[in-house]
Amino acid sequence: MREPKKIPRYEKFAQELETLVRSGTFPLGSRIPSIRESSQQQGISFSTVLQAYQLLENRGVIEARPQSGYYVKLQPRRKVPEPEFQDRQGDPAKVSIDEMSLQLIQALLKLNYAQFGAASPNLDLLPTQKLNRILADLARDGRISHDVGTAVEGAEALRVQVAQRAFGYGCEFSPDEVIITAGCTEAMSLCLQAVCQPGDLVAIESPTYFGILLALEAQHLRALEIPCHPRRGMSLEALRFAVENHPVKAVLAQPNFSNPTGSLIADEDKAELVKLLARPGIPLIENDITGELHFSERRPRAAKSYDRDGLVLLCSSFSKDISAGFRVGWVAPGRYYREVQSRKYAFSVRTSVLPQLAIARFLESGGYDHHLRKIRRAYAEKIEAMSEAILTHFPEGTRITEPGGGFVLWVQLPDRLDSVQLYQEALKAFIAIAPGYIFSPTHKFDDFIRLNASCWSDRSEQDLARLGMVVKRLLGGKR
Amino acid sequence: MREPKKIPRYEKFAQELETLVRSGTFPLGSRIPSIRESSQQQGISFSTVLQAYQLLENRGVIEARPQSGYYVKLQPRRKVPEPEFQDRQGDPAKVSIDEMSLQLIQALLKLNYAQFGAASPNLDLLPTQKLNRILADLARDGRISHDVGTAVEGAEALRVQVAQRAFGYGCEFSPDEVIITAGCTEAMSLCLQAVCQPGDLVAIESPTYFGILLALEAQHLRALEIPCHPRRGMSLEALRFAVENHPVKAVLAQPNFSNPTGSLIADEDKAELVKLLARPGIPLIENDITGELHFSERRPRAAKSYDRDGLVLLCSSFSKDISAGFRVGWVAPGRYYREVQSRKYAFSVRTSVLPQLAIARFLESGGYDHHLRKIRRAYAEKIEAMSEAILTHFPEGTRITEPGGGFVLWVQLPDRLDSVQLYQEALKAFIAIAPGYIFSPTHKFDDFIRLNASCWSDRSEQDLARLGMVVKRLLGGKR
Repeated sequence: MREPKKIPRYEKFAQELETLVRSGTFPLGSRIPSIRESSQQQGISFSTVLQAYQLLENRGVIEARPQSGYYVKLQPRRKVPEPEFQDRQGDPAKVSIDEMSLQLIQALLKLNYAQFGAASPNLDLLPTQKLNRILADLARDGRISHDVGTAVEGAEALRVQVAQRAFGYGCEFSPDEVIITAGCTEAMSLCLQAVCQPGDLVAIESPTYFGILLALEAQHLRALEIPCHPRRGMSLEALRFAVENHPVKAVLAQPNFSNPTGSLIADEDKAELVKLLARPGIPLIENDITGELHFSERRPRAAKSYDRDGLVLLCSSFSKDISAGFRVGWVAPGRYYREVQSRKYAFSVRTSVLPQLAIARFLESGGYDHHLRKIRRAYAEKIEAMSEAILTHFPEGTRITEPGGGFVLWVQLPDRLDSVQLYQEALKAFIAIAPGYIFSPTHKFDDFIRLNASCWSDRSEQDLARLGMVVKRLLGGKR
Repeated sequence: MREPKKIPRYEKFAQELETLVRSGTFPLGSRIPSIRESSQQQGISFSTVLQAYQLLENRGVIEARPQSGYYVKLQPRRKVPEPEFQDRQGDPAKVSIDEMSLQLIQALLKLNYAQFGAASPNLDLLPTQKLNRILADLARDGRISHDVGTAVEGAEALRVQVAQRAFGYGCEFSPDEVIITAGCTEAMSLCLQAVCQPGDLVAIESPTYFGILLALEAQHLRALEIPCHPRRGMSLEALRFAVENHPVKAVLAQPNFSNPTGSLIADEDKAELVKLLARPGIPLIENDITGELHFSERRPRAAKSYDRDGLVLLCSSFSKDISAGFRVGWVAPGRYYREVQSRKYAFSVRTSVLPQLAIARFLESGGYDHHLRKIRRAYAEKIEAMSEAILTHFPEGTRITEPGGGFVLWVQLPDRLDSVQLYQEALKAFIAIAPGYIFSPTHKFDDFIRLNASCWSDRSEQDLARLGMVVKRLLGGKR
């Protein structure tokens, strides 16, 4: 466990200013205090203010006008009503995917790249050309197609890269403590197998990604839904109550920009979460697949970085930011290393080698950080634009999350409008959405929809406007 | 279900002659009957005999000497004592991999390509250059690295190829009935998940591949070991007794050249096997990973080809003959399609796309049959050579299987010599073997070892001689 680096003063100041801009304190086109003024007001040096302003310029928040000063370039965000926090905790329940959910999930997969539906990344934001060059190189190299020198745990070159990057967000584990998997989903499934027996109770986020529910069902596990705040994530109070009153065998959470809400558990709360579970010795299966897609300057830490007992099994993948088709993920399973390794062997022997090596070379080549900066900015803009469009085209009473990362929005419909009905009507208008129905084993979120913003473009607004019309029509029938 | 094509007369005659040669009726260098003689003796036409002789020439069994006739070129095989058929049926038992087995299995994986150990194919017999060219082409094509147009069930191009080939060995299923998986192991694991609940009883081959035992343990299943004849495979009598007297929920079998014995269930017995399970409606998970590696002229059928009720879940992969590192397999799950598809999504979402497309192109390119003929011959020769060497260097009382396909030999040691002890002593001499201990959940085969012949070369004989010395030394200590 390492302490996080202190945020430099200039960055803190830049963040404060940006918050003021986004909240409308400094509206579009307005002049912000000069460097001299800010320096005096804040009691910080000229150069610190200058650094902060340059950062904000780079991020498109302000612009310098010669001989005049700094002006706001960013449209302030309209006040977004946040979805309600559903804090009613459920009872432990066997996870059983009903026929309707299964059909909805399968349809989502078929409509893979239809707008707004599945939470797939934007293909144009993946480093395709570079990966193709790497593949061509690997093909020239020779035996790559059948290299199995890598055993169950995967290619060392990639495990080295994973461990190096994880060090950057506070985790200290060696390449030998990493197992490469077929994506983050396999990583989490193997972890569940490693720490649970059939019938065991697993605490999950509510709402949660429906893939988690499929995995729990496949492994005959029961789920206990822990309420999640739309911005702050899993309620630690509720979780504490849960582990004190139920035989919880594992906790599954996505602290950094959970799917579907995009909520973020603050770093200090992550430390608290880890501590809370350490006492009873309950393993935390941490899904960090969107950890790199943060909109703020700093990458949030992983809960794993606070883990002193090897109880956190950190899972992630490169499917959202490098290659959607390669299916390369990984897990750092802490004290459960051998169990996970043995399950990996039992289930799929090892991960396809070529995609591992291609991603390892991509990471070694050093362009990853630059690439990430580019896509983070793009997703932040798309999320922003989609939120604006929802506010414009959806009826009064609609509530939207304000995610700090990732690329999905979680939308609460007015008047408890039925999301499955909306899904069906939207399909007729050739628009795919993910109905809230499938994000809870007890269907707590029937009046929510998840929208994927990753492919937002200027043309998307029409589609969203059409979707808004459908919502209004259904609402009209209801009201 | 289709009827198998009738074997042409010339081929039948060639097989009969080859058997006589191998059994020593026509020893090395002896002259076989002339074409005229054979034609008269057998009552078949000149041209049929000629075709048969040409076939035997191609297969290196005989050679034509101008102006003289046909002579035996093939060394007759020494009489190989077959391992004993252990027909004691066990009791249903929870599969629990003990610490020693786990260590042995993990060591096997580490020593991946050490001689004789893991059942890995010979890398020099994989179509590397061609795959590399295909990969280079795919890399040029563009978006291949992140193409996810394929959903859960995998790339259509590959499913088409799988269905076409399966038609060739008697199976009629469409590409839409196939799901691509991360190797045959994932295919079988998904099938187990689809048809079993934790605690269920699964009938397995005895001996069986240890990976099966890991999979059963991971899924909390119980195993019922069905005795397998070293040449004819799973005893149908024993299986019938088992399903009549135990609540068997699924049967797992590798009818074509099972691992480790290389046994083959004859096609008519496969029909019987399918019929036997159809009455009680028990699904058969058929592992056909070595089905293409037959040494005789005809590919044996899959049990699936006799399936009228959709009860056979046929699993296979390309890991033994095209690419060991790609991890691309498939399953045709019959009536369990939706269950398997849903488990696939739950467990790993989809299979890595690039390796699927590379293999699809390889199959489309048409060189697969030629490639298979080449490697079948190579493996047949290696198996033959290794058997000879065992007979030469191992002590009296050693028994060996005579597999009709694949590339492993199953060896019964004399005097119930302990295979784990041999394994440990062999390691000190830098020789890896797979001890029989790990091929049964109740350790019925402690005096057996499995030897991988895939990498046999002239230099291997020394290693095998050294192994024989170790066996003799241990036996000396015992006797």
